[in-house]
Amino acid sequence: MTQSQLYGGVLTVDLDALASNFKLLQAAGGRAECGATVKADAYGLGLGPVATRLAREGCRRFFVATLGEGITLRGVLPQTSIYVFDGVESGSEADFVRHDLVPVLNSFPQVQRWSAYARRGSSRLAGALHIDTGMNRLGMSEQEVTLLERAPQYLDGIALDHVMTHLACADQPEHPLNAQQIELFERLRARLPAAPTSIGASAATLIGGAYCGDIVRPGVALYGANPFSDREHSLREVVRLTARVLQVRELSREQSVGYGASCTLPPGTRLATVSVGYADGYLRSLGNRGMAAVAGVRVPVVGRVSMDLITLDVSALPAGAVQSGTQVELVGGAVPIDELARAAGTITYEILSSLGTRLQRVYVEAQAGSERTTIQARPGA
Amino acid sequence: MTQSQLYGGVLTVDLDALASNFKLLQAAGGRAECGATVKADAYGLGLGPVATRLAREGCRRFFVATLGEGITLRGVLPQTSIYVFDGVESGSEADFVRHDLVPVLNSFPQVQRWSAYARRGSSRLAGALHIDTGMNRLGMSEQEVTLLERAPQYLDGIALDHVMTHLACADQPEHPLNAQQIELFERLRARLPAAPTSIGASAATLIGGAYCGDIVRPGVALYGANPFSDREHSLREVVRLTARVLQVRELSREQSVGYGASCTLPPGTRLATVSVGYADGYLRSLGNRGMAAVAGVRVPVVGRVSMDLITLDVSALPAGAVQSGTQVELVGGAVPIDELARAAGTITYEILSSLGTRLQRVYVEAQAGSERTTIQARPGA
Repeated sequence: MTQSQLYGGVLTVDLDALASNFKLLQAAGGRAECGATVKADAYGLGLGPVATRLAREGCRRFFVATLGEGITLRGVLPQTSIYVFDGVESGSEADFVRHDLVPVLNSFPQVQRWSAYARRGSSRLAGALHIDTGMNRLGMSEQEVTLLERAPQYLDGIALDHVMTHLACADQPEHPLNAQQIELFERLRARLPAAPTSIGASAATLIGGAYCGDIVRPGVALYGANPFSDREHSLREVVRLTARVLQVRELSREQSVGYGASCTLPPGTRLATVSVGYADGYLRSLGNRGMAAVAGVRVPVVGRVSMDLITLDVSALPAGAVQSGTQVELVGGAVPIDELARAAGTITYEILSSLGTRLQRVYVEAQAGSERTTIQARPGA
Repeated sequence: MTQSQLYGGVLTVDLDALASNFKLLQAAGGRAECGATVKADAYGLGLGPVATRLAREGCRRFFVATLGEGITLRGVLPQTSIYVFDGVESGSEADFVRHDLVPVLNSFPQVQRWSAYARRGSSRLAGALHIDTGMNRLGMSEQEVTLLERAPQYLDGIALDHVMTHLACADQPEHPLNAQQIELFERLRARLPAAPTSIGASAATLIGGAYCGDIVRPGVALYGANPFSDREHSLREVVRLTARVLQVRELSREQSVGYGASCTLPPGTRLATVSVGYADGYLRSLGNRGMAAVAGVRVPVVGRVSMDLITLDVSALPAGAVQSGTQVELVGGAVPIDELARAAGTITYEILSSLGTRLQRVYVEAQAGSERTTIQARPGA
């Protein structure tokens, strides 16, 4: 048995490409310090290997969503700054301190909570302030900022790490909401104690200038996906998903394929069934719409995506060219991830963060001149 | 800190409801033996607890997709029959034997491979034969069955466990393909050595009769989802997903919500941001289409689903009724999973198998009169 036979598919993560994208974003951000958003298990790529490599590239600030993610990351990187977007809930204050995590304080009650906890101890506690400027998701409203301005004692005990906001339409740089959000942010943060600012996620970092602030926190662009909905990028591809053909068949007569008989194909069609399905994060919306590649030749997904399987029409390849065991590219290479996301009717972020639960993950990076490959076993498979 | 504060959401699995559904399917299958399909980590519910409980209910045959899943399950259940749908690949024969796994042989080459390996040893090896009758996904074609009929020596060394097929349209019992598939299956399997048959997955098991065969292997119905696209069911609900409100805000003027400013709401709207997003398997297609419930009151998802967050319009509830920390039902209870799947433009199977990677899983079951709750920590969170 080869290790990969335990799995339906293999997710290969190119850590050198990740490092290269980090440098590109660092340069695009100009004078801003470049952090990294690694929530959702580094967008499905694996928190440990991704954060370790980024730290080696000089990244010193990491952003996660949940307390659990923060604790996991602290086990990987003992020294770095870790910010938790969800903020601090009642009862979890001590865990933030124990694991040296910085909450992003999203509301006046969260600020009160963190300040009250800090004042019970002997040293100040780091916190970031999130001002909402138009997402209406997390972050303090103008009224809450006013409250803090009038009663700055609510910040007592908090060492203000930075003040942040989040743009709703940075993927469309010309969208009027961007300028409105930045203008509102500048106005509101001026009413709070002076602190570094953080605005730019991936798209805004690549736009640069006023869209960045003092600290940028790109996510999806690190992982090689286009953060823009309306322009190209020059990021390197980080992720490839490959899988094996389990079986090939040639239709002897006109027949339908898969559940619901949603696709009917003529006699002579050669079909290849591949060992990846929507339980692997290959979205079901790719049924009759997705594409793959065999030996560089693009072939369509035919029929519905099953939980564990997809079927490709490989008639474009010579008979015999595709066999049981043949490797198929499902994401990356001849199948750009951004194009696949469009075919699925979604964004690359969802493709990335869905992949991986049942896939083998392989990490490649050059080291001292030679390529090193690390295989990380996945839980539950 | 409570354990659940580590996580964005909690997936509660009712093992008694699972057991009850197993009994219902067992009864529906009549004289057929009732097995269980537990691939894809038991459709996202957790292979270990699900298989353990089903074994306690008398289930003796378990079906998984990959070799890796089979090995994992063998570690949980040392005694039971475990079938691997993907079949045996070249080089993995010894692993099937070592872990006492039964391959589902999907093609003539797989039959040859298993037979050749068996003949090198001293005892026969169990195998199931899969005949394709119209899915055109996995399974032997009529030509391959003819080959085996003419050259039965290719089955030497194989202890034929059962012969199976898979229906493409069992979710629509009146679909003409069902009868065609069963007719073809009966004709082809008669040309092979006598063995028990297996036809019914969830829908076909509930239809009963000729749709079952001697062994049924339901999956999604065990987990409380409707396997039919055109009728009701009487299965018990197994899965609930709940999450906490992180923040509540009231709009002071007309404003948009979330990425892309896809939804604009009037002043006075009260919004609650909840700590679950598409990285948790809450599909992005639920943006502006999904629904949740707070204290039994249904509320809509407004704006796009983010990677880690969704936003609900909770204006239907009294001011103050929803606060930071309030529990929200996202799946189950007032939000039937089948209805949510329709809102997402998909099927319940995908909702189930997507959930869970970053969620806390809690298992509840009555034991000796008292309720027992088991909390299973999830990897990576």
